[in-house]
Amino acid sequence: MANSSSGDGMTERLVRVLETFTPTRTVQTAAEIGRRADLPSSTAHRIVADLVGAGLLERDDDNGIRIGMRLWELATRSSAALRLRQAAMPFMDAVQTRVREHTQLAILEQDEALFLERLSGPRSGANITRVAGRLPLHASSSGLLLLAYADRGTQDRVLARPLARLTAATPADPAAIRRLLAEIRARGQAVAPGFIEDVSTGVAVPVRDGTRRVIAALSVVLPREASPEPALAELHRAARGIEAALARYH
Amino acid sequence: MANSSSGDGMTERLVRVLETFTPTRTVQTAAEIGRRADLPSSTAHRIVADLVGAGLLERDDDNGIRIGMRLWELATRSSAALRLRQAAMPFMDAVQTRVREHTQLAILEQDEALFLERLSGPRSGANITRVAGRLPLHASSSGLLLLAYADRGTQDRVLARPLARLTAATPADPAAIRRLLAEIRARGQAVAPGFIEDVSTGVAVPVRDGTRRVIAALSVVLPREASPEPALAELHRAARGIEAALARYH
Repeated sequence: MANSSSGDGMTERLVRVLETFTPTRTVQTAAEIGRRADLPSSTAHRIVADLVGAGLLERDDDNGIRIGMRLWELATRSSAALRLRQAAMPFMDAVQTRVREHTQLAILEQDEALFLERLSGPRSGANITRVAGRLPLHASSSGLLLLAYADRGTQDRVLARPLARLTAATPADPAAIRRLLAEIRARGQAVAPGFIEDVSTGVAVPVRDGTRRVIAALSVVLPREASPEPALAELHRAARGIEAALARYH
Repeated sequence: MANSSSGDGMTERLVRVLETFTPTRTVQTAAEIGRRADLPSSTAHRIVADLVGAGLLERDDDNGIRIGMRLWELATRSSAALRLRQAAMPFMDAVQTRVREHTQLAILEQDEALFLERLSGPRSGANITRVAGRLPLHASSSGLLLLAYADRGTQDRVLARPLARLTAATPADPAAIRRLLAEIRARGQAVAPGFIEDVSTGVAVPVRDGTRRVIAALSVVLPREASPEPALAELHRAARGIEAALARYH
């Protein structure tokens, strides 16, 4: 039997092992994992072996270790947020087909905007967003939209921290951001010209659940010179479609 | 310090806890998780608390436990198979827009077809596939395609097991399936009329990596009465597009 303290440590070490994998570091040796997770070599080798045995990690032909498909499957098949994504997909497709720019779905997660999905056409422009990637709440159109509808505690916490400027246009003054959030709530949409990258403007609208609570931001990344209005009209139409689809699930 | 045996047990118990969540059971109490994972109540409560602390599970307002977004994020952001999915998405969109039926991407995983993605239009027909869901290799067009290009050991293992008939048309005789697999390899595509559901025909084509190894099946679910040829032409074109996109990553 594991005792309580070894159990606590084990879960935390497991998470540390999984966290050593990143979008640019998808294959590692067990020794590299141990070094990056700050674990003794023997502990790292044992945890990796356990996780490989359970299918959460996979070993390739050259002894490299990767994230296993079983982990993705367990995480995906029963997640409510991923059902939101699935309900949203046909409507995101429609936006992408008409606007022909990156179309994204994000939720508020641990004080950041977490991107559940991004659809890109062959001719979509620059965009630093990744699926399962994050952006700061104060800098992206999705993040500002989510922050505008977040509870006061979340807003105060986020605005009390240092706010990085990603470009000269990124809002970084808490008072100015609060005015921006009020404007977003008044208009029911967010426009972020050059806040993340000089060359693009993010536009985002809210997606609400049956109780009218905002649960996600639906957004498009436009070239800076494009008018945001046609994209916003498409996004509002898609958000209403997603909300109707979610209502049918209940 | 955890010793080796408590560590082994812990990983395995962790996976058992995660496995109690299913597409139709997304919220459970800690007591229900313990019963379904066959764990003592105190152990179940402790593991759930550890996993909630690490963000891999989440507790909602009514003390229900859900899969956490952190688990999805860890599983998704650094997975090579999910990069395949991301490379495939624009081409799957194009197929879905033209054929207007469910368009799917599957890989071979633990002797089943695991679906990484499904795109559906508002007017797509019946389909039992789920994202992160599985279908048997011998019954679905995706599964037969993956089995046709799998190594001999996998084929022998799968065909030595009992083969369930999902409809009267599902192939269940190993010798007949081996002839079907040879035909799929000869034609470079799989057609499965009524194998999964009487009303639909699955059609699938291979997606290959830089070494010409088949890494995925790209498929469409058509109404049974539809001609498979136009959809197959779209799928072959999309597969070539995905292969070119993957080659650009290297």
